[in-house]
Amino acid sequence: MAAPTPPLKDELDIVIPTIRNLDFLEMWRPFFQPYHLIIVQDGDPSKTIKVPEGFDYELYNRNDINRILGPKASCISFKDSACRCFGYMVSKKKYIYTIDDDCFVANNPSGEKINALEQHIKNILCPSTPYFFNTLYEPYREGADFVRGYPFSLREGVPTAVSHGLWLNIPDYDAPTQLVKPLERNTRYVDAILTIPKGTLFPMCGMNLAFDRDLIGPAMYFGLMGDGQPIGRYDDMWAGWCCKVICDHLGLGIKTGLPYIYHSKASNPFVNLRKEYKGIFWQEDIIPFFQNLVLPKEATTVQKCYIVLAKQVKEKLSKIDPYFDKLADAMVTWIEAWDELNPAGASQANGKA
Amino acid sequence: MAAPTPPLKDELDIVIPTIRNLDFLEMWRPFFQPYHLIIVQDGDPSKTIKVPEGFDYELYNRNDINRILGPKASCISFKDSACRCFGYMVSKKKYIYTIDDDCFVANNPSGEKINALEQHIKNILCPSTPYFFNTLYEPYREGADFVRGYPFSLREGVPTAVSHGLWLNIPDYDAPTQLVKPLERNTRYVDAILTIPKGTLFPMCGMNLAFDRDLIGPAMYFGLMGDGQPIGRYDDMWAGWCCKVICDHLGLGIKTGLPYIYHSKASNPFVNLRKEYKGIFWQEDIIPFFQNLVLPKEATTVQKCYIVLAKQVKEKLSKIDPYFDKLADAMVTWIEAWDELNPAGASQANGKA
Repeated sequence: MAAPTPPLKDELDIVIPTIRNLDFLEMWRPFFQPYHLIIVQDGDPSKTIKVPEGFDYELYNRNDINRILGPKASCISFKDSACRCFGYMVSKKKYIYTIDDDCFVANNPSGEKINALEQHIKNILCPSTPYFFNTLYEPYREGADFVRGYPFSLREGVPTAVSHGLWLNIPDYDAPTQLVKPLERNTRYVDAILTIPKGTLFPMCGMNLAFDRDLIGPAMYFGLMGDGQPIGRYDDMWAGWCCKVICDHLGLGIKTGLPYIYHSKASNPFVNLRKEYKGIFWQEDIIPFFQNLVLPKEATTVQKCYIVLAKQVKEKLSKIDPYFDKLADAMVTWIEAWDELNPAGASQANGKA
Repeated sequence: MAAPTPPLKDELDIVIPTIRNLDFLEMWRPFFQPYHLIIVQDGDPSKTIKVPEGFDYELYNRNDINRILGPKASCISFKDSACRCFGYMVSKKKYIYTIDDDCFVANNPSGEKINALEQHIKNILCPSTPYFFNTLYEPYREGADFVRGYPFSLREGVPTAVSHGLWLNIPDYDAPTQLVKPLERNTRYVDAILTIPKGTLFPMCGMNLAFDRDLIGPAMYFGLMGDGQPIGRYDDMWAGWCCKVICDHLGLGIKTGLPYIYHSKASNPFVNLRKEYKGIFWQEDIIPFFQNLVLPKEATTVQKCYIVLAKQVKEKLSKIDPYFDKLADAMVTWIEAWDELNPAGASQANGKA
């Protein structure tokens, strides 16, 4: 008897940013091997990254990025895991799962290994419910439903654009919290998935994340971080804020909760503090900016929304720091590069669902 | 060694609406006995309700309600558990916990009995975070915190007005869902507490609910249900929608999640359908009404907010059905009765925290 085909096998790419050999894939082999990997090599392009045998992959280093994007390569960060978004751009698939190379397979409370990718696929293929909160969490899960008082007209839900997974062991804390609570580990397995309500922002972590490229891909830009930039560790946050306001505007959903991965090691809090400290100030202005952002009715596609957003960033955030002027330009460059690599209809042609 | 004083022993009343002997209290004895109970007897006032020995309680039947409130008693529902809100009004304590008499002590996944009241007290004494979503849920719990990207200016949170607990075994479904899934039981213990974000409505169930009377009491009106009314089973929903918009306006928080109780028996879905069917239509208009409601800046107290809300109900919902005209009047009567029984500053005088 043949094994069943893994879900979305030909419609999903796994994007991994890395600077080291990908031994961590050994642990993921039973779950990832059927899928195609896009590896984005950060740092020194002359270094060779070893990928365990049997995986189907393409690998891009900085030279490849420069060659493929030409002058537009300036929008892709260097020496920062934000470079992963180049992988989102070159993928030809409908769905992306991205994971960090220090993330291992977690166990559920029964001690079974969690197939994180399978759970993300479930999340993303099932609707979201951003307009009203369901107190029993994900209403579409087995054993759950909409509770009394949930409007029937809202029970069909909306398409899910993003599935945000969580982390056991090392929690995703900022540098100040890491410094204050160096020994804190996340051991609480919360058996829930939920839709982040419309109008609510959240801190999106890029460690364990899936999304639908067709629905939200062009907004999944991880910004300008790392080499030559005044800030780091806000790449996924930036993408999350942008994606959330655009999903809210376009009527798309974002889920968070399951699946968990096991996050193996804390990054250095002192290094993190240096990368983060400007962001810690800036986010106090950035959050109200996103909370008050209104996208116009004419912005009917992700690209159009993103260009409007870039303009607003230039207008309203540049006064915080000239960095935002540069970032706004990079956002436009990103969209130009995205459209060049993804001519209209191309990804639909790949959609075989 | 003396046993430690139970938390908020002299500052919290337990309100129980009932039509039967309160044998269910036996199971709750270790957790409830130190507290004062307010029992609101529904239905035939000549019937005697037996309360297990050793509990400290006061009991009100319909004759008592009529005597105490006079003509204003018209705002208290009869032959419906909505009558419980009379108990909120006569309490002189700062905090209320209300529970149905078919709710038993649940076990957590380790098999330990859950002290639901203790968890509610923890929830309500700890701030809420309605302005930004924390992906690791309640940031103030042991072993958790705010994640990277959570604005530091929002980490103090806001006062918590309501703690909404959940139910294992029989889930709180509407009649159509009960009919379609007669055998569904909630067996998923989700180890989470979270703040319902600002601007998001939720279906508040009155089965297992705690709140701060000083912060939100006057909005905790369970409406006109049961005898002589065209609708039932929307009492807690109505209170939830009103409380949520007022909490959002006043900068207060509502939490949902833990603690669980064990809900022992499903009510009759055919009877429920008769009570609910108008509500099922009406809520399709009521939800947008609450979603679009704007309270004026001058509404700086719960009472002021509630009076504005009553006016808006009359103006905008009466066209659905004359019932809303009557409900709007009852909302005003409720506030008048509340203020009569709770002269300004009275409950603060009881606050010994």
